[in-house]
Amino acid sequence: MKLLEERILAEGKAVSEEILKVDSFINHQVDPVLMQQIGEAFAAHFKDRGITKVVTIESSGIAPAQMTALALGVPLVIFKKQPSRVLNDNLRQTVVTSFTKGTSYELTLAQDFLTEEDHVLIIDDFLANGEAATGCIRLLRLSHATVAGVGVLIEKSFQPGREKLTEQGHEVYALARIGRLEKDRIEFLPADDAH
Amino acid sequence: MKLLEERILAEGKAVSEEILKVDSFINHQVDPVLMQQIGEAFAAHFKDRGITKVVTIESSGIAPAQMTALALGVPLVIFKKQPSRVLNDNLRQTVVTSFTKGTSYELTLAQDFLTEEDHVLIIDDFLANGEAATGCIRLLRLSHATVAGVGVLIEKSFQPGREKLTEQGHEVYALARIGRLEKDRIEFLPADDAH
Repeated sequence: MKLLEERILAEGKAVSEEILKVDSFINHQVDPVLMQQIGEAFAAHFKDRGITKVVTIESSGIAPAQMTALALGVPLVIFKKQPSRVLNDNLRQTVVTSFTKGTSYELTLAQDFLTEEDHVLIIDDFLANGEAATGCIRLLRLSHATVAGVGVLIEKSFQPGREKLTEQGHEVYALARIGRLEKDRIEFLPADDAH
Repeated sequence: MKLLEERILAEGKAVSEEILKVDSFINHQVDPVLMQQIGEAFAAHFKDRGITKVVTIESSGIAPAQMTALALGVPLVIFKKQPSRVLNDNLRQTVVTSFTKGTSYELTLAQDFLTEEDHVLIIDDFLANGEAATGCIRLLRLSHATVAGVGVLIEKSFQPGREKLTEQGHEVYALARIGRLEKDRIEFLPADDAH
């Protein structure tokens, strides 16, 4: 997505070879018009897949996921990050460990909100090692729901997230793909909507 | 807001005299069309106030705040909940204690995203004791920004949040006002858009 790549070049900060900060328009301050354009781009790509729900993880994916769900005309389900296991028959949980941050949480879903009838599009801001997305997929499996695909704003293509997901048969659709980061330098690969 | 009240009656669960669960359309599963209507309602009320930014706290307020910011044509800033104080000159922080949940967090803002030029609309899902909203206002003051008002989806009018905020001179605009909760019973007061 040309618009997103241009914005990343203009405002993104390559803090190191691994970390890209996009705090001024995605993660902390949010450009609501860009989020609308992103939601429409995901909806245009996934519109004929019979999607019944959009899923994201709190909290950076919520704004683009809200716009995607609105454009597709389906509900959004926000998976919660609980600090610890909750004993409640109504909840499904799975541990997600973030290598980047060195932290773990219990990804949590109230079972009422996804069933075996659901065909789900997962939306998130970043795809890096794929830990969050594979956690989502584990919760979808526990709910007997099916995965329609994974849409991400920014893929760090030098990390193994995409490979892990495609090896499991899941489509990854990334609006910007970072091939390489160096301090103050950002290189793109062709995005999935660039053809 | 008639639509929101009807939805609360249809799907909200009065778990006790203090707790109303709206997990099926606001907090866990989200109705993106209702969020759009809510965003438009806030924007219609606040449109002539010279608002430059919408602010919310992660994560339940993000979807309606995104729609409000989109309708007003201004950026959204998401205040973060950090577990502990961070030593960084670039960050502003203030402790918020939730009486309902018995927890505390450091409400956090990178100082770049609000300045003395900003006139800010605060959006949140619930107003109860007003701890979160007053935390937001403290961070706005630290940034020398001004408060345009506080828009909430649901006010628990039997708790002191509104009073605290109006005593400080802030307008509260609530789309649904709960006068009383009993197990399986929800009573409304007239909402702020009902006249």
